[in-house]
Formats: sequence, structure tokens, C-alpha cells
Amino acid sequence: MPRVNDHFAKLKAGYLFPEIGRRVRGFQADNSDAPIIKLGIGDVTEPLAPAITSAMKAAVDEMGERATFHGYGPERGYGFLIDAIRQHDYASRGVDIADDEIFVSDGSKCDSGNVQELFAADATIAVTDPVYPVYVDSNVMAGRTGAADENGRYTGIVYLPATEENKFAPAPSDKADVVYLCSPNNPTGTVATADYLETWVDWANAHDALIIFDAAYEAFIRDDSLPHSIYEIDGARTCAIEMRSYSKRAGFTGVRCAFMVVPKELEGKTSSGDTVSFNAMWNRRHSTKFNGASYLVQRGAAAVYSEEGLQQTNAQVDFYMENARLLREGLGAAGFTCYGGEHAPYIWLKTREGTGSWEFFDQLLRTCHIVGTPGAGFGPSGEGFFRLSAFNSRDNVTEAIERIKKAYG
Amino acid sequence: MPRVNDHFAKLKAGYLFPEIGRRVRGFQADNSDAPIIKLGIGDVTEPLAPAITSAMKAAVDEMGERATFHGYGPERGYGFLIDAIRQHDYASRGVDIADDEIFVSDGSKCDSGNVQELFAADATIAVTDPVYPVYVDSNVMAGRTGAADENGRYTGIVYLPATEENKFAPAPSDKADVVYLCSPNNPTGTVATADYLETWVDWANAHDALIIFDAAYEAFIRDDSLPHSIYEIDGARTCAIEMRSYSKRAGFTGVRCAFMVVPKELEGKTSSGDTVSFNAMWNRRHSTKFNGASYLVQRGAAAVYSEEGLQQTNAQVDFYMENARLLREGLGAAGFTCYGGEHAPYIWLKTREGTGSWEFFDQLLRTCHIVGTPGAGFGPSGEGFFRLSAFNSRDNVTEAIERIKKAYG
Repeated sequence: MPRVNDHFAKLKAGYLFPEIGRRVRGFQADNSDAPIIKLGIGDVTEPLAPAITSAMKAAVDEMGERATFHGYGPERGYGFLIDAIRQHDYASRGVDIADDEIFVSDGSKCDSGNVQELFAADATIAVTDPVYPVYVDSNVMAGRTGAADENGRYTGIVYLPATEENKFAPAPSDKADVVYLCSPNNPTGTVATADYLETWVDWANAHDALIIFDAAYEAFIRDDSLPHSIYEIDGARTCAIEMRSYSKRAGFTGVRCAFMVVPKELEGKTSSGDTVSFNAMWNRRHSTKFNGASYLVQRGAAAVYSEEGLQQTNAQVDFYMENARLLREGLGAAGFTCYGGEHAPYIWLKTREGTGSWEFFDQLLRTCHIVGTPGAGFGPSGEGFFRLSAFNSRDNVTEAIERIKKAYG
Repeated sequence: MPRVNDHFAKLKAGYLFPEIGRRVRGFQADNSDAPIIKLGIGDVTEPLAPAITSAMKAAVDEMGERATFHGYGPERGYGFLIDAIRQHDYASRGVDIADDEIFVSDGSKCDSGNVQELFAADATIAVTDPVYPVYVDSNVMAGRTGAADENGRYTGIVYLPATEENKFAPAPSDKADVVYLCSPNNPTGTVATADYLETWVDWANAHDALIIFDAAYEAFIRDDSLPHSIYEIDGARTCAIEMRSYSKRAGFTGVRCAFMVVPKELEGKTSSGDTVSFNAMWNRRHSTKFNGASYLVQRGAAAVYSEEGLQQTNAQVDFYMENARLLREGLGAAGFTCYGGEHAPYIWLKTREGTGSWEFFDQLLRTCHIVGTPGAGFGPSGEGFFRLSAFNSRDNVTEAIERIKKAYG
């Protein structure tokens, strides 16, 4: 038998969402008529905005005619999309990003998983705990960790507990070479202030560290004075890579488009002491292992920035955030302590009397026929917490609140 | 400065096609009215078939309505596509592949680049020379090689020269743990017989080796008795992974869809001697670092298998293969020795009197305003050869032949 990558064997069985899927299917098999409301995986429910579908249909028409057909596109993305990103996502907030610092991809899950290919093999990774599992799992597969302990923590990874005590905003650790930060945060729903990000940027520049900043949920920030990009912080261009996505902002979870920003000032060092450009490295990675996002998809993403596109997608974000407000207030009325949900589509609910996250998952499914995500699935510090997503219809959100009030209020 | 993955520094500057692009832009800057014909990168030119564009537009409509909207899909692909693949690509040729052995992706370049994540860190990789550069570069980045020598060959990789002498069909090497085979071959345009593949399968099973079989061009095989899949060979299910693509077969180079088959009998061994399933490993990789191919794209790919879709896309393949025949015969008439082009859209042309590949590239661009791909760009054994692609309009192909006959005939 061929020898394999040993590190896969360290991965704990089952990625979080497949495990949730298995439990839900098991419940449904025994309770086929239970009206389940899914507030779990964080998948959008609103359809694509008309500006987007129009642009995509026009793109399909182009692809059906010889004169306007598009074959291989630029690996880093089409100019029409990169230009819109530069203007609307960055210049509009006073942040200067060059076209060749933007890399369009088929999703932030891919970018999150692939970015670690740039790090030294023995780099020490830091993550907040709880955390989006891809940051950790992709580093486990690449061999940057030891085995997992009984709490699911891998040796060699620095875990930074995000707790009620530190307001879910852990401080930097001197030991790390690379840190993944996510704001607005998945799963806690909390948002980083400029002061907090400044602490991290200053630390990274002082400690030869790299920040991977996941801003997939930036469109959900309601307070304009909060940073949308890490590049709003002085010094970030020499220490940070930023990820953005159209998944939640424009309903692209099934369409697939995202992008990553790698500033040209961001330099790294080889073990022989040579200075290298992260931008050049990522460009090499991107053009060697990726062939560009689908033309149809990029046309759809560019339409997000049109006048109608912005109006329509912003209205969707507003809609989800009203769901978040209703959930937060409804859960509060039912006596739960809740975090998040003000600048993020996630509510981070504290379970009562030390109920375990998975126990609460089974309870909520059985009692209320509601699917959420166990906090412990995002890391041991998520134990005793539970993530509810605001991505659903208003009727389902209202109904879910009623069921929870009835069961727990 | 953060420390980086040292192995990127081993990569030779510039991926082949960007280098070609640079030379063509340089020529165009000085010769803006030269009517260039591109037979280089191997990108399709025919528009998407009507059956595909109809299906994609219907899918866009679905995505624009709440009731039929699709968010996150199954990471391994939708059932409607997997089912079509199983039936049309495999069962129709007597090959039994299960649904959960098929993994839909956003392109074979990604699959080719990512599959090496399954191999042991110290696995010895074998490639034919010349070869599609992604197989090599992705292993260089992962640290499975030493530095490149003056011929561009990396130490630690086993190169199997594909030459006129061995009919571009090199024999197995005992030293390799993993071998990449591509048939119909890019770049030589030659095709593997069942006997030849049997030699490899028997060798792999006897030597604990793994075959990565790239069948991206299988639709171009004109002789029905030649194998389209490695699984037509007895014993392949215990030693081979197969890759397929819609890029060339259905004009998806800008649409992005492909798939990989990982049989459940395919087992590997960890360094501690445990037996693991490659299918389970790839499923973990796929569901951790990928979020499924775009719904719109998968609907388009499934339409390839409809009655109209097969008729229309097969007609496109026939059209390109008639181009290939004209090129082969025209080049022969101009006095060139040519290989390939009978079961593949590529002609592997032997340059004359020891002209170097890149020298011939510059000569053909200057004299005939034709862009091809230097054989040396695919590896040192490609030196003295040149790849011409059949992906172009009939007018351009005819015109290219006339120019070549005039210049060289």
C-alpha cells in the first residue's frame, strides 16, 4: 500500500457540520413530521438579488456566443471585479489597495485552508478559541501540530480563549508566528474595535508575526466607526493578509466567490535569511494550483457593486440583522445571556446551569425542533455556549423565538 | 519578518504560460498590427453549447427565487451531477464506480495541485518528461524535492523521459511511490493503450505505489477500443486515482468544473503501519478546504450529459479533432515530423535541425505570427519539440497551416 500523509490521522473524526447533519438526519428519521427550523450552519436563505441574476444571465449569454465567449481568465480575477473591490471595499473607506494585491477565489473556505501553504513548516499557529475549524484543521493536515488532547486541542497550537471575562477579545501571545483573527467573529458574533486591532498589529510587527484577518462578515457591521478592514489600522500592510467573501454579504454560499488581499509591503524570511514577498508567493500559489473563479460567478460578484446591487444586497443584510435583533431580544426575554448579533449575523448564547453545548443541541432539537451549532464544536472554550444564526425567514425566526420562549421562558 | 515556506524559493521563475504571455505582449508592442493566431495555451474557442447555457440560465432563475434558491451544496457535488457521471462516464463503458467515489471540484488544475496533500511528506514522485507543470510544482511547494538543476529538473523527482525512441510511453521506475500519468497526453498528444496502462497498474500494485491518472482529454479519443478510464484495467481500483475535466470536453475553461474518482478499495499506510482509506482522506480534505463547486456550474456540467448536450459537445470535440487532423497533415506537408493529434487536441511537432523549443517559439511568432508552446517548457525531454493546439476556428487553423507551409514548406 502507498504511504500517506500521516497528519490526517490526527484530525478528530468528523468536521462539525457533517456531525450536525448526521444528528439532524437521525432525529428526522424518527420524527419525520417535526417542523425543523435550521439556525445552525449559517447558510443564507434569501435568493440572489435581481442585479446579480441579471448580470449572471448576461454572462451566460456571452459564453454562448463565439464573439463574446470567455475561456481561461486571469488566475487572480478579472479587472472588472478587482477594480470594483478596490474602489468600493477599500478606497471608499480611505484604504489604498492596489489591483495586484487582490486575489479573487472561489470561496473563503478555500482561501482559509490554502493560505497556510505560505507559512514555515514549523511555524507556531495561534487561534482564538472558539474558532472556525478550517484554520486549525488545515494546519493539522500540513503537519504543524501534534495530536489532539481529550478537549480536542492540538499540541503545538496556541489557543487564545475568547471568554466572557475578556469580552471575547483575547490578547496577543508572544509564542505565535501566525495568528488567525476573525471580525465580525464567527462564532461569537462579537466585533473588533480599532484599538483592539491596533494591539494586534503592533504586536505582529514587533514579533515578526503574521495576521490572517478573516473579514467575511464585514458587511454586517452596523457602526460606521468600527473598522471594516484591518488595513484601516496603521502598520497592517506589513503584517496582515485579509480575506473577504460574497457568501454572506450577497448570498453566494452556493455561487462561490471570495477574495484575499496580500499587500506588497508584506515580507517574509526564508530559513537562509532571504527576504521574500508574500504577494509574489501567493501569486505563484494561486497561478499554479488555481485557474481563476468562474467567469459567470465573477460577473455576478461585480454586480454586487452596481447601484442596484448595493441597494439590494444591503437590504438583505439589513433583513438578516433585524432577524439577529429579534433573536437577541427574544432569547434575552426567555432569560438567556446572549452575545454578538449586533454587528454580526450570529448570536452566541450561553446555555443555562452548565448544560453542555452538544447536550443543549440535542435538547433544542428535541424540544423546540431548532437546529443550532454547539459552541464546543468550535473549540473547548465554546463549551457551554451555542451559536444561533440569523439566516432564515422572518417567519421562521419569529416561530423559533416563540418555541424557545415557550420551552425556556 | 514572519518566516515562510522555504520550498517556494526552489520554484523556477515564471510558470510556463505567463512567460509565453510576456513574450507575446512584447512582440505585440512592437508589431501591433501583426495578425497573431494563438495555438498555444490550449484554451477552447467554441462557445458553450446551447444545452449548457439553457441549463445555467434555468439555474440562475432558481437562485433568484426563495423557494428554489440553493445555498451551500454538498462538498462532493450534487447528486444530479454525480449520478450522470457514474452512468455516462463509467457504467456506459462497463466500469462500476459508486457515487461516493466521485468528488466534483472547480477544475482539474486544483485537483492536480491538491491531490499531493494525501502523499507522505517523503514520497518519491515520478512524472513523465515532458509533463504538465502543475504535477511537479505542487510537489516542489510541498517540499518533496530538492533544488532544480540547470535543466529545470528537481532533485528527488524521478523523471521518465517520453521520447520518440519509447514512443512517448516510458516504462515504470522502481524508485517511485507516486506516478502521474496523463492520457491522452498533454503535451505530447499521444494516447495510452490498455496494454501500456496494464503494465503500470501491475507495477503499482506490486510496488505499493499510487497512480494519479489524468484523463482530462478522454473525450478526444477516437478509437473506441482504447481505454477512456484507468478503471477499465483490472487492478486499478487498488492503485489509482483518476481526474476528469469539463474544460476541454465541453468548453468549461472559463466555467470551471472537474471531478476526481477515488475508489474505496484504494488503501494507504501511515508510518506507524495503520491502513487508511484514500477515499476517506480525500473526503476529509475536500470537505475541510472546499465548499463545493458553484451550483450554476454543476447544473451546466450535468447538461453536458443530456441528449442535446452530448450531441452538441461531441460535435465540438469532432470539430477540434478535424482541426487537429488538418494541422497534422499540413505540418507533415511542410516537412515536419509530428506526433499526437489523433486522439488528443495537441500536435507534438519536432523542430528542425536541432532548433531549440524557445528559439522555434520566437521564430514562429516572428515569421508566421503563430503562438505555440515550447516543448522545453514542459521539461527537458521536450527540448526540440513544440506543442500546437487544435483549439481555434477553422479559418485560423487553415490560415496557420498556409503560413507555416509558406515559411517552412
